[in-house]
Amino acid sequence: MALFTATGPMSSLVNPMLTDMYQISMAYAHWKNGKIDDDATFDLFFRKPPFQGEYCVYAGSDEVIKFVSTYKFSNDDISYLKSISPEWEEDFFIWLESIDCSKIKIYSVDEGSLVFPREPLIRVEGPLAIAQLLETTLLNLVNYPSLVATNAARMRLAAGPDKTLLEFGLRRAQGPDGAVSASKYSYIGGFDGTSNVLAGKLTGITVKGTHAHAYVMSYTSLKDLKYTTIADPKNKSKQVEFLEIVLDVSKKIQSSIPYKSNEGELAAFISYAQASPNGFLALVDTYDTLQSGVPNFIAVALALNIIGYLPIGVRLDSGDLAYLSIKVRELYRNIDKVFNTTFLSSLQIVASNDINEDVLLSLSSEGHEINTFGIGTHLVTCQRQPALGCVFKLVEINGTPRIKLSQDVEKLVIPCKKSTYRMYSETGHPLMDYMLRADESIPEAGKRILCRHPFEEQKRAYVTPAKVEPLLKLIWDGENGGIIRPSVPLSAARETCKFQLATMRNDHIRPLNPTPYKVAVSQSLYDYMHELWLLSAPISDLK
Amino acid sequence: MALFTATGPMSSLVNPMLTDMYQISMAYAHWKNGKIDDDATFDLFFRKPPFQGEYCVYAGSDEVIKFVSTYKFSNDDISYLKSISPEWEEDFFIWLESIDCSKIKIYSVDEGSLVFPREPLIRVEGPLAIAQLLETTLLNLVNYPSLVATNAARMRLAAGPDKTLLEFGLRRAQGPDGAVSASKYSYIGGFDGTSNVLAGKLTGITVKGTHAHAYVMSYTSLKDLKYTTIADPKNKSKQVEFLEIVLDVSKKIQSSIPYKSNEGELAAFISYAQASPNGFLALVDTYDTLQSGVPNFIAVALALNIIGYLPIGVRLDSGDLAYLSIKVRELYRNIDKVFNTTFLSSLQIVASNDINEDVLLSLSSEGHEINTFGIGTHLVTCQRQPALGCVFKLVEINGTPRIKLSQDVEKLVIPCKKSTYRMYSETGHPLMDYMLRADESIPEAGKRILCRHPFEEQKRAYVTPAKVEPLLKLIWDGENGGIIRPSVPLSAARETCKFQLATMRNDHIRPLNPTPYKVAVSQSLYDYMHELWLLSAPISDLK
Repeated sequence: MALFTATGPMSSLVNPMLTDMYQISMAYAHWKNGKIDDDATFDLFFRKPPFQGEYCVYAGSDEVIKFVSTYKFSNDDISYLKSISPEWEEDFFIWLESIDCSKIKIYSVDEGSLVFPREPLIRVEGPLAIAQLLETTLLNLVNYPSLVATNAARMRLAAGPDKTLLEFGLRRAQGPDGAVSASKYSYIGGFDGTSNVLAGKLTGITVKGTHAHAYVMSYTSLKDLKYTTIADPKNKSKQVEFLEIVLDVSKKIQSSIPYKSNEGELAAFISYAQASPNGFLALVDTYDTLQSGVPNFIAVALALNIIGYLPIGVRLDSGDLAYLSIKVRELYRNIDKVFNTTFLSSLQIVASNDINEDVLLSLSSEGHEINTFGIGTHLVTCQRQPALGCVFKLVEINGTPRIKLSQDVEKLVIPCKKSTYRMYSETGHPLMDYMLRADESIPEAGKRILCRHPFEEQKRAYVTPAKVEPLLKLIWDGENGGIIRPSVPLSAARETCKFQLATMRNDHIRPLNPTPYKVAVSQSLYDYMHELWLLSAPISDLK
Repeated sequence: MALFTATGPMSSLVNPMLTDMYQISMAYAHWKNGKIDDDATFDLFFRKPPFQGEYCVYAGSDEVIKFVSTYKFSNDDISYLKSISPEWEEDFFIWLESIDCSKIKIYSVDEGSLVFPREPLIRVEGPLAIAQLLETTLLNLVNYPSLVATNAARMRLAAGPDKTLLEFGLRRAQGPDGAVSASKYSYIGGFDGTSNVLAGKLTGITVKGTHAHAYVMSYTSLKDLKYTTIADPKNKSKQVEFLEIVLDVSKKIQSSIPYKSNEGELAAFISYAQASPNGFLALVDTYDTLQSGVPNFIAVALALNIIGYLPIGVRLDSGDLAYLSIKVRELYRNIDKVFNTTFLSSLQIVASNDINEDVLLSLSSEGHEINTFGIGTHLVTCQRQPALGCVFKLVEINGTPRIKLSQDVEKLVIPCKKSTYRMYSETGHPLMDYMLRADESIPEAGKRILCRHPFEEQKRAYVTPAKVEPLLKLIWDGENGGIIRPSVPLSAARETCKFQLATMRNDHIRPLNPTPYKVAVSQSLYDYMHELWLLSAPISDLK
């Protein structure tokens, strides 16, 4: 029985078995060598922000809490592990079946925060063997959520604050969970809704969607319509004639705009409006967008308006989206003039074909009339960089800091149990993040602090912050009842992301060649790590 | 209650709610318009093979069967849908709660088959509204599995048949399910095992893994060893002295090879060997691969050998893998000579740093001594192309073929309920795939058949196949009790893939600029689709 009573993870696949075999092999070796309870500290961090940017939006801590709070191997799990490791001693499996996260402490930055290279996003403290067992699952639960939240935030910045962004990626996502995670974490990054019904049910995010090409193609002619009426908006139990009005309007607009109606398409639009008169958004590119789809939409929309309904708009799913959106807006306005109406001009234009950050940037710069973007493949699979490289590294054991050498300075791990702070300017912009050893005195607003680049000795600066905020907060303390900071609502994480993007200096978050945001270390941490570095490095002895 | 008693899908997230909202909106519109039972046929296919190749390895049909056999909206699902669509009529939800796949037929190509552009991988027949409701989930269940199986197959071809390939991608995968699916479907593509314990438990694939850098770093010196003995291989209840032998050997090899031992690393290797003397595979790059890691490994390996155990080998996780593997093999051989042993020379060299298809190709061409590759990020996230673009298109309704126009000839859908066949040469190579209308007489071995390119009228050929095989097979027939072809074991799908790759002409599957494999249509299908195409296309009327 687990000690804690949190809800389990969103996916049934998230359990202690979702790990690399070497974690369990290491646990066995630690168990054999009496090291399971060594006091360990691990940092989870990344070395390079994704998408050639200089920041990452941190996400996934909600599922991390759910995972640790229900951490428990089942009988089945133990039987399976015994079957594949028949040489291991029985007592190890008894220990393995007994463990949970009641001796683990987890510190995390806030969900939705902007985070930067080499600073810990999560710090795990506790018995070596158990903390080590958490590695792979924690990485899986943070890497993709943070990647897709960052991708979404970049798309939000590219589209501008007043556009509606919808996640449409379920069919192309990397598995069912890739899809649901994409819906959830792109919302944190600034998306407004999703097409994914299950994600809506599980997270409360707004769900959107109308119809596909197949719906249009399932009608051949007006003869396919089963009835010709529509509910009266003033009295839903009464039916009023609809088809006749559509055909009448359709005839009238033929003199105002080029119109070569595909009859099956018109029938499909009519039937869709009959079913959802308050939700009439038509996909207009099945046959010919400007000559058939849009005029057919306008005919049905005008008829709905005559009866007393307000249609929603059109969706463009192919072709030159900027050009088509401008043409559609023109048609809306022309017909408003001809028919002495006003509602058409402000109807929605939704676009949804193969959109990515570059397309959004180029649309924003050339000008368009799109209100809403439906973004699928490129959002959810993060085609520009489909993996974030978070790692989980031992930084201290039994009070002794550890360092892993590497020929490559980029791959050096900053040792020690560390605290991290964000320092702000008087105007409220973050100036720099600052790491120090956990036992150093914390930086204070108004006091001058010497900040050092972790590796390059000539890079250093004095900073006098107007405000200082701690970044790592205790979210899980097994010894004190478990969850310390319950996971925040998605909407709060979304606000965190939005606020932090708004206060960040623009050159750090621009899409092209952004300025790196600095993450510094204290003088004491600098000295300590360089000493450790020299001590651990072999000296060549040339003769 | 679902009618069928198959096991449910691998992930709890796979259920009827894992769909796009527009599918349910369309179902509502079809329901309102009395079209739910229209007789529909949909094809699932892709237009462009992934990774600039000319083929794709089809996978995912096992989960498709599990999904349709348990297809049922829950009370909870219905309540949620009502809450977000309050305008829809109550009777629709009663209908929605009642549906299952008992009127659906599904045809599929064999799991693990090579498949080609525009031919149906799955054909779904049945009531329009229900068949349409399956679209998004089926695409999700086929797109990523086929993508990752293809990626794995390409890596297998690049590495050669005698290398061991292990999937190591859990930590970087797109969500928990992305990870487990990657393990499962990369096995079909030709991988041998995975590090993912849960995938092993759920699928039976071999699970592998030893230790990480953190294990090595958790030891500082030989004083950290809790004991100095190891079990006697001839009598497991007896302990024999081990540390002394290791230190003795370690001293002896110092005169033969450059050796600057990191003591913590040596302690870690000793402790790991004590725990798993039959599974001693050491990660050798924590401090210095050639000066510390490999000599420390050799010292422990020789000691194990003296006592009567056979060690496994080393894992390289950084640096120039070709160079290091050759150096390690040299060291193995040198020490074998010095110590008059033979076992070292044939020990394993495992490599696992940032490997992708190009790295494998380049290693194969320059030469190396690696036996086993552990491949993570690039395998599971398919960085070169992280999504496969399968689509699901209505091709016939109530006996009438449907076509969707497009300015782009690549995007045209081949209409009609179709049969597909693979035609073989006398030497057993596939010659061409051939699609015809379901009511045409089937092609026969030894008879000359006119094959036409679906779109380009001048491209045609006579083919006289030595053998003809149908590609689409009925796997689900709801009206006749459900599952017709139970999903094959993973190992059978893996054999299918291996066999088909072996019989395919090499120029179709080579990594660079492969020759397209032809997918042709019958004369009758050609004529029919071009007639339909002309009928549906608007004619410009220039004045």
